[in-house]
Amino acid sequence: MTVSDIERLIQLLARLPGLGPRSARRVALQMIKKRETLMLPLAAALQQAAQSIRACAVCGNLDTAETCAICRDAQRDPSVLCVVEEVGDLWAIERSGAFKGRYHVLGGTLSALDGRGPDQLNVAALLNRLRPGEAGGQPVREVILALSATVDGQTTAHYIAERLADAGVSVTRLAHGVPVGGELDYLDDGTLSAALKARRPA
Amino acid sequence: MTVSDIERLIQLLARLPGLGPRSARRVALQMIKKRETLMLPLAAALQQAAQSIRACAVCGNLDTAETCAICRDAQRDPSVLCVVEEVGDLWAIERSGAFKGRYHVLGGTLSALDGRGPDQLNVAALLNRLRPGEAGGQPVREVILALSATVDGQTTAHYIAERLADAGVSVTRLAHGVPVGGELDYLDDGTLSAALKARRPA
Repeated sequence: MTVSDIERLIQLLARLPGLGPRSARRVALQMIKKRETLMLPLAAALQQAAQSIRACAVCGNLDTAETCAICRDAQRDPSVLCVVEEVGDLWAIERSGAFKGRYHVLGGTLSALDGRGPDQLNVAALLNRLRPGEAGGQPVREVILALSATVDGQTTAHYIAERLADAGVSVTRLAHGVPVGGELDYLDDGTLSAALKARRPA
Repeated sequence: MTVSDIERLIQLLARLPGLGPRSARRVALQMIKKRETLMLPLAAALQQAAQSIRACAVCGNLDTAETCAICRDAQRDPSVLCVVEEVGDLWAIERSGAFKGRYHVLGGTLSALDGRGPDQLNVAALLNRLRPGEAGGQPVREVILALSATVDGQTTAHYIAERLADAGVSVTRLAHGVPVGGELDYLDDGTLSAALKARRPA
């Protein structure tokens, strides 16, 4: 009697980040047109991913195995841990290809506004990983705090740096400065000040 | 061994209109976070919609029944047919609430560039619907061509108007003019000329 199957699909699509009601309708129509090549494969991929994907027991990365591919990779340096907020940040650093250590995913930042305190973050597991002999091999010697340069991100970085003060590891942060390819004219004052303060011999 | 389930999901999501690789990753992460409330319901809705949704045998609208809700609705005037390009256009007109007749979905426009000729459009069925006694009731007296004001849309409108010349129905088009809420300053010349030409007593 109703077209509720389409409407239900559009309502669900509209809840995805970046899609509103209008683009959800467009996506739905496109999928109905490409039923065999897009709609059914996507339904199957969603089902499959929902069943198989889990958080890595060690670092919090997403994978289909209990321990993620990065934690299992013997080629990667276990003595350097890169602490990130979300799995998306881990992916971004992996795409850069600039880091060959292991990761630790916090699952967010401290946030007074959203009521997220230290207990909601994956910090206890991070401290556990730093205990000597805990990793079953080489101890961690450096923790890189790769957190957002936002108020919440920096508050979280401070908090973690304090918690790690007695852990006997060196704690570092990402450099602030001019983004590669960025034009000075369009940079905000804070970034320019940081880049000036952290200037280096040319 | 691999994270291919996530990658496959992201690749499929990136093929949706309006989503690129970056937003597809964001959508995938969001869905994994909301596995029970978003990911699995969406998978089920896609599966369900792919099975149940079909084109209406009469007008080409999408519905779960052989004949769509609009064609079945006895309250709607069967003597006025609104010809649209796509189902999305039909939805747009329905949202306006300004039309109480029935529809006919062409499934696109004529397009020399995309190699779409008259045979690819749902025109034969439109002519069939205009044959006296074919609708099993009131004959069609007016066909409104609600096609895009683009070159392809207007070419298609011309073509259909010609095909309908002998059908004994009046053929009308949507008015061109200033969009409601539109500022003259921002309007293109074509729209302004059309609005001037079609001026009406105030």
